Amino acid sequence: MSETRNRIISATNELFRVHGYHGTSLSEISKAAAATIGSIYHFFPGGKESLTVAVIKSTGAIYRELFEMIAAEAADPTAAFVDFFEGAAAVLTESDFLDPCPIGTIAREVASTNDVIRLAAREAFESWIDAAAHQLTSAGVRSEVAHDLAILFVATLEGSFIISRTQRSVEPMLAAGRRMAPLIDAAVEDGLRSRSD
Amino acid sequence: MSETRNRIISATNELFRVHGYHGTSLSEISKAAAATIGSIYHFFPGGKESLTVAVIKSTGAIYRELFEMIAAEAADPTAAFVDFFEGAAAVLTESDFLDPCPIGTIAREVASTNDVIRLAAREAFESWIDAAAHQLTSAGVRSEVAHDLAILFVATLEGSFIISRTQRSVEPMLAAGRRMAPLIDAAVEDGLRSRSD
Repeated sequence: MSETRNRIISATNELFRVHGYHGTSLSEISKAAAATIGSIYHFFPGGKESLTVAVIKSTGAIYRELFEMIAAEAADPTAAFVDFFEGAAAVLTESDFLDPCPIGTIAREVASTNDVIRLAAREAFESWIDAAAHQLTSAGVRSEVAHDLAILFVATLEGSFIISRTQRSVEPMLAAGRRMAPLIDAAVEDGLRSRSD
Repeated sequence: MSETRNRIISATNELFRVHGYHGTSLSEISKAAAATIGSIYHFFPGGKESLTVAVIKSTGAIYRELFEMIAAEAADPTAAFVDFFEGAAAVLTESDFLDPCPIGTIAREVASTNDVIRLAAREAFESWIDAAAHQLTSAGVRSEVAHDLAILFVATLEGSFIISRTQRSVEPMLAAGRRMAPLIDAAVEDGLRSRSD
């Protein structure tokens, strides 16, 4: 039962990566997940809307964990961010430039028309911003600077998916990550300096 | 005749800002533009695809001109970028957080499924990257640094639309612009220093 639910979420996520929210129909989801429409409504009584919220929650949690895993293994605070951009570039290459983050696409498609989905997307982004800000404050960055830089990180990542996918090149994504690095270095140094004052 | 064509492009652009590409049908465009489906095909024989390319070209050119206008009036090279973020924040507020840039949304929706539209979006983004890079090289920034920073600028702007629209707050957009500023300051100073060596 839970296996079918997961299969529906996973198939929907993959369809969203290719076609976005409005470009994906329940009948296509039914086919890709090998689950009847009735079964989709059984697990997601709100239909496409509540299924989409589940996809956003699931993908949001996976990416947050991925960031935390990469951050835990990074050589230094800045490397956590640069490594994440490099990982995203690898995902783009391996998937032949499918959308790595359907949340960003869905958010833009429905931000003005569906508050339930908008708020789910908002929660996912805020959870990443929190994770990134926590990584920075742990490295000594002052909290308001950390929060701003965490926003810049998530925004730049989302925007880089657009530029890289339209160019079918990871270069824009890597360039954005590379150029953000000195900002994080400077914030960490600044934080450490003000602590030692 | 050309007036009808412009009315169709403008109405389509407004529908894209609310519903994205897949969420907008030709019949809705026909209604919003007060133009028959036959008239839409008269001006855009390729239907929705070629109409979308025309919308992307038109919006792409308008935003490039806007950037150049803001840059020409900015107090210094960095202010051009910060002012653009502030202008984008004002657009978000005035429009009650409608999508300021349907090109970014459409690009993500169809990057894997429609090469004609993908390439039109790519061209629009590259024209903005060129304009931003030109602004930086004119201020003395080395060309490869200028190109990277121009990519970072466009990517960050596009990503900030997502975060700001999901939060219905301009704060993320302003924070991203504010935190990018020292990078541009540093690149300009670095360029001037290496010139005077």
